[in-house]
Amino acid sequence: MLGQKRIRDYGVKIGKLEAGKWNAISDVSGVTVGHTTLSDGDQQTGVTAVIPHQGNVFKEKLIASSHVINGFGKTLGTIQINELGTLETPIVLTNTLNAGTAAQALMKHTMLQNPEIGRTTGTVNPVVGECNDMFLNDVRAQFVQEQDIFHALDSAGSEFKEGTVGAGTGMLCYSLKGGIGTSSRKLTLEHGEYTMGVLVVSNFGILSDLTVNGQPLGQELKAALLETREEKDQGSIMVIAATDLPVSERQLNRILKRASTGLSRTGSIMTTGSGEIVLGFSTATKIPHEKPAECLNLNMIHEEDMDLAFRAIGEAVEEAVLNSLITASPVKGRNGHERPALKDLLEKFELSFH
Amino acid sequence: MLGQKRIRDYGVKIGKLEAGKWNAISDVSGVTVGHTTLSDGDQQTGVTAVIPHQGNVFKEKLIASSHVINGFGKTLGTIQINELGTLETPIVLTNTLNAGTAAQALMKHTMLQNPEIGRTTGTVNPVVGECNDMFLNDVRAQFVQEQDIFHALDSAGSEFKEGTVGAGTGMLCYSLKGGIGTSSRKLTLEHGEYTMGVLVVSNFGILSDLTVNGQPLGQELKAALLETREEKDQGSIMVIAATDLPVSERQLNRILKRASTGLSRTGSIMTTGSGEIVLGFSTATKIPHEKPAECLNLNMIHEEDMDLAFRAIGEAVEEAVLNSLITASPVKGRNGHERPALKDLLEKFELSFH
Amino acid sequence: MLGQKRIRDYGVKIGKLEAGKWNAISDVSGVTVGHTTLSDGDQQTGVTAVIPHQGNVFKEKLIASSHVINGFGKTLGTIQINELGTLETPIVLTNTLNAGTAAQALMKHTMLQNPEIGRTTGTVNPVVGECNDMFLNDVRAQFVQEQDIFHALDSAGSEFKEGTVGAGTGMLCYSLKGGIGTSSRKLTLEHGEYTMGVLVVSNFGILSDLTVNGQPLGQELKAALLETREEKDQGSIMVIAATDLPVSERQLNRILKRASTGLSRTGSIMTTGSGEIVLGFSTATKIPHEKPAECLNLNMIHEEDMDLAFRAIGEAVEEAVLNSLITASPVKGRNGHERPALKDLLEKFELSFH
Amino acid sequence: MLGQKRIRDYGVKIGKLEAGKWNAISDVSGVTVGHTTLSDGDQQTGVTAVIPHQGNVFKEKLIASSHVINGFGKTLGTIQINELGTLETPIVLTNTLNAGTAAQALMKHTMLQNPEIGRTTGTVNPVVGECNDMFLNDVRAQFVQEQDIFHALDSAGSEFKEGTVGAGTGMLCYSLKGGIGTSSRKLTLEHGEYTMGVLVVSNFGILSDLTVNGQPLGQELKAALLETREEKDQGSIMVIAATDLPVSERQLNRILKRASTGLSRTGSIMTTGSGEIVLGFSTATKIPHEKPAECLNLNMIHEEDMDLAFRAIGEAVEEAVLNSLITASPVKGRNGHERPALKDLLEKFELSFH
Repeated sequence: MLGQKRIRDYGVKIGKLEAGKWNAISDVSGVTVGHTTLSDGDQQTGVTAVIPHQGNVFKEKLIASSHVINGFGKTLGTIQINELGTLETPIVLTNTLNAGTAAQALMKHTMLQNPEIGRTTGTVNPVVGECNDMFLNDVRAQFVQEQDIFHALDSAGSEFKEGTVGAGTGMLCYSLKGGIGTSSRKLTLEHGEYTMGVLVVSNFGILSDLTVNGQPLGQELKAALLETREEKDQGSIMVIAATDLPVSERQLNRILKRASTGLSRTGSIMTTGSGEIVLGFSTATKIPHEKPAECLNLNMIHEEDMDLAFRAIGEAVEEAVLNSLITASPVKGRNGHERPALKDLLEKFELSFH
Repeated sequence: MLGQKRIRDYGVKIGKLEAGKWNAISDVSGVTVGHTTLSDGDQQTGVTAVIPHQGNVFKEKLIASSHVINGFGKTLGTIQINELGTLETPIVLTNTLNAGTAAQALMKHTMLQNPEIGRTTGTVNPVVGECNDMFLNDVRAQFVQEQDIFHALDSAGSEFKEGTVGAGTGMLCYSLKGGIGTSSRKLTLEHGEYTMGVLVVSNFGILSDLTVNGQPLGQELKAALLETREEKDQGSIMVIAATDLPVSERQLNRILKRASTGLSRTGSIMTTGSGEIVLGFSTATKIPHEKPAECLNLNMIHEEDMDLAFRAIGEAVEEAVLNSLITASPVKGRNGHERPALKDLLEKFELSFH
Repeated sequence: MLGQKRIRDYGVKIGKLEAGKWNAISDVSGVTVGHTTLSDGDQQTGVTAVIPHQGNVFKEKLIASSHVINGFGKTLGTIQINELGTLETPIVLTNTLNAGTAAQALMKHTMLQNPEIGRTTGTVNPVVGECNDMFLNDVRAQFVQEQDIFHALDSAGSEFKEGTVGAGTGMLCYSLKGGIGTSSRKLTLEHGEYTMGVLVVSNFGILSDLTVNGQPLGQELKAALLETREEKDQGSIMVIAATDLPVSERQLNRILKRASTGLSRTGSIMTTGSGEIVLGFSTATKIPHEKPAECLNLNMIHEEDMDLAFRAIGEAVEEAVLNSLITASPVKGRNGHERPALKDLLEKFELSFH
Repeated sequence: MLGQKRIRDYGVKIGKLEAGKWNAISDVSGVTVGHTTLSDGDQQTGVTAVIPHQGNVFKEKLIASSHVINGFGKTLGTIQINELGTLETPIVLTNTLNAGTAAQALMKHTMLQNPEIGRTTGTVNPVVGECNDMFLNDVRAQFVQEQDIFHALDSAGSEFKEGTVGAGTGMLCYSLKGGIGTSSRKLTLEHGEYTMGVLVVSNFGILSDLTVNGQPLGQELKAALLETREEKDQGSIMVIAATDLPVSERQLNRILKRASTGLSRTGSIMTTGSGEIVLGFSTATKIPHEKPAECLNLNMIHEEDMDLAFRAIGEAVEEAVLNSLITASPVKGRNGHERPALKDLLEKFELSFH
């Protein structure tokens, strides 16, 4: 977005369904995204925050779920999401060794909005995802500070950058520069129009596996680069999915599990050292923090309506990963490490998508 | 029920909540139970069927969940219950080596009611639970036949026998005669009156662990019996829970997990060779098999209302196990094997509950 | 196998790793496969049995695990596999409404070999998988009988047919004739040579999604067929994975989860009505039924060695699905229903793989 | 320990098995415990660290598992424990709103010992558990600092205080003062002598449910206190289990699940707002961080040996909770809030255990 050339602009069309207005997670009404980018020498890291709705998320929780594709990861907050089926904070994404900082700051941010936390009501469950950016970033320095989290949370909007930005600043994907990517799909059901939106932090895969809409681009690039050494994947991917479909937490979980179809189609084999976590929420129903006198009342799609959502998340994840690759800019970071950007390689070797 | 002297009739009062009218799973409106008892020499086995509502369960499914306390068991149907969150057949309980027969018969029974299965709609997910009655029954003979399943399904009612009956015919519990037990609790919430009902097939535990409302009765009995040999538990327990509380499948699952508190208080340590499975459903909402044009709409209690349900299932399970023990009659079965009934031992040794 | 033209014979090369001798699950030493095919008018169904080793599987169990991709399925035996981490019977595959019959027969077959079951030791956990063949087969008739299970178990060998055979007789895949497929991959690690083998019963997907090595073949076929109607997928897939890698049940489970990468690359979106279950075992260690005096001692690969296994299962599953499609013969079954075979369509429309 | 009068010293004997030398988690060789206590006015909180062995835990990992009894909790690190089956840091326990601080500090502590983290190897998975001490502690102030974590880690020993100390400083249990408790059991198997040790942070339950070895002590206390108001449980419990039994991660997980039997016998109903998490490890096998050339080789008990471990953890958890209650000292904390200590009430009302 914001003037960046995305995978569609190269003529690559993923899947059968139509994208939303921005082709972004923010096509789901109320969802916004904010970034803090820390890019300076050995410091190549940052924060990305996904705000699930524009009200008080602690007081009006959303139905939520998580799915672990591969659990070599330090994501926080999933135990409570799984037990209670709700999300009560924004989702903050950052580097692995700052996940604790992010949790501390997110709790503080939520407490500032909700003076009753820790007084007349219980505590808050911060949700934080992470990927390891150690190749380009001095991750041991634990650069991210409280104010960086606050800035990402407070600067969120409907339009936002992809690629080398926010939590994606130092990430690698398929041995190229990776980072933030987003995409969305529209869902037409008998009872309404809905949207499925996805945001990823891409940080996984080896070059020779990269596949774009069936094209073995990674092998073409490897040949062009005269690259013979195969890297070991130590990466990870965070997938955040948002929808306004009225779904139960079980249904949402079923949807999140299908994120792996999109990842697989880009070439992923889900390696052992990769933290691959999917977090999702539905904005269709708000669950009040305080118990009302009456029962809650929810809408929920019939199970027969699920296939469209399954197709949508797979397509959106596939396109979001490709967007993260094609929008990324090259970075020279820690110890002079660098990774090429896909767009530069395409140009350099005159390769094209077909 | 039906004239049997139950644990309350001995002055034992379990927990804080009040029981329903019958103190049985059938206190949940619409739930009925049927038995087929096969008791003749080496044949000491049977079938118990729990009918979740009196309509067509395949066409109007109920929200359902399962919880595995210990998975040394062959229960069928939980994969689909967990995926779709619904129950579409009665629950049939029998001996381990007839679980397949029961599944076959239950599918047939459901097909007879629903000619569209396997024609214009898909298949059906039969739910069958089992315990191993090999000590008293010649389980290798696989005695149970299709008509035995049909009879249990077709003879179900609100009032039914406990103890040495149906699937409980050949079961042992705490080294005594076990079998079928049931109990219920009333739940008063701001928005209504609800019921939690439980039925168990008890077939677990060793004598020295038996505890009744805190009293180490098993050790008292062991001393009275001059029994020094400790038996190895190879047993199991099936717990069926029914409620009319409006709950999601996630909430129901949370409730089912608390069945273990009641089991623990009777002395269970959940041994390795014991199949301990909890199956539950809520009658509050019927999910139509055929997709309607509109979204489904459900009621669901607020999470803050869950504690009462947690307390209720623990108390009902504890009392149901004790009911299964105290109502059981002694059986002489395979190879002349026999097990004493608790009520007979109490009388013989002049032991009492305190 | 056995003279059938497979996907490799059409020049389609899936993945980076080399296949075993037969490119079949039986490349894992000791694994054999048997079929019973029931093909006559409205009866288009059958049984496929996978024998995990040639000794007494009940007495020498194998480390095993299961993974549910989508749980609209009636597979039996996974509760105990998950709890105890072992497989103690062959795996029997058949149609959905005969899963109970298969379980009954498999228990009986195991009891005939093991007279102590139900006497001096406990019961046995039969493992049965199923897919719904109702389009071509009169599934309501529950055609499969005990002797059909016994025949599949007793006729197993290292070389066996693929396509329209055994449990695959009546199955559909990507709106074409599906059925049995198999493939394998060799794994070279520092400490040895190992094999990963896979067998599938393919019964899922819609034509327009079919993808072969990146080629949108389904859309090409749909265009050729002038087919505009989109079918609804009510299918399923059973994946059986065998390996001689020394792995713990947790490691094996991690491997099984990667089956979905191969499915995704053939075009699967894992639809709601599809039972997609993966069952796997390792032949590297035999766990004795009877407790020895000493601790068990096991080999286990280091986690860093897992990636090769992840790649292997994905490739083998992808190729096994394609083998099931390309080897299948057309069937005219129930009510004259029929489905074309992929090989016939390729020839008819002069389409090729590229 | 350390001169404190424990539940056994009051004549209460829990279960059938013998305790270890210290009747503490540190009876498992190599396990030590350290506390940081912050007790001053509104600040009533702290840190407790469990060191799983005395070597470099990152380089020599231990087989580990986690079990969520009720997931209203913010425990960190379980995703990776579940995926990889290993623990690579000490376990740090603190208050809920400092879980992020603890994670940050624990990562730093581990990096100081392991300069290759984030350089030539990946990152580290910090394991942090928490309970909410907001009644006695100003939890919003997030008092715990990095040096408090370091101090707990660096001061650990085999003998340590229970009750109102470390992470237990501000905790409540059964409406009384709770905190740290520990206990152990010896296991005699054919192939050796082993130990099961447990440490708890107790912070759950309401007075009327408190049960001591079958005695309804909570109701006796409530009567004595003329207390009629029933409190709502918003508590939680962390259970850390250590053993030297050679077990796989699956077996360990089965053991951890039995912690709930002990909790249930003290009166717990596992309320909705309670974070109840069990973390455990086995010291029997060290898994090297760096992949060796050969396969790993592990010992593992036969499944038939599990029952003793199941009994042991249940008994140790029950006794550890009672130890946490009976050793606790009263605290006056935030806003003058206070909670009585069990030992003081017993004396005041001349109540005794029977």
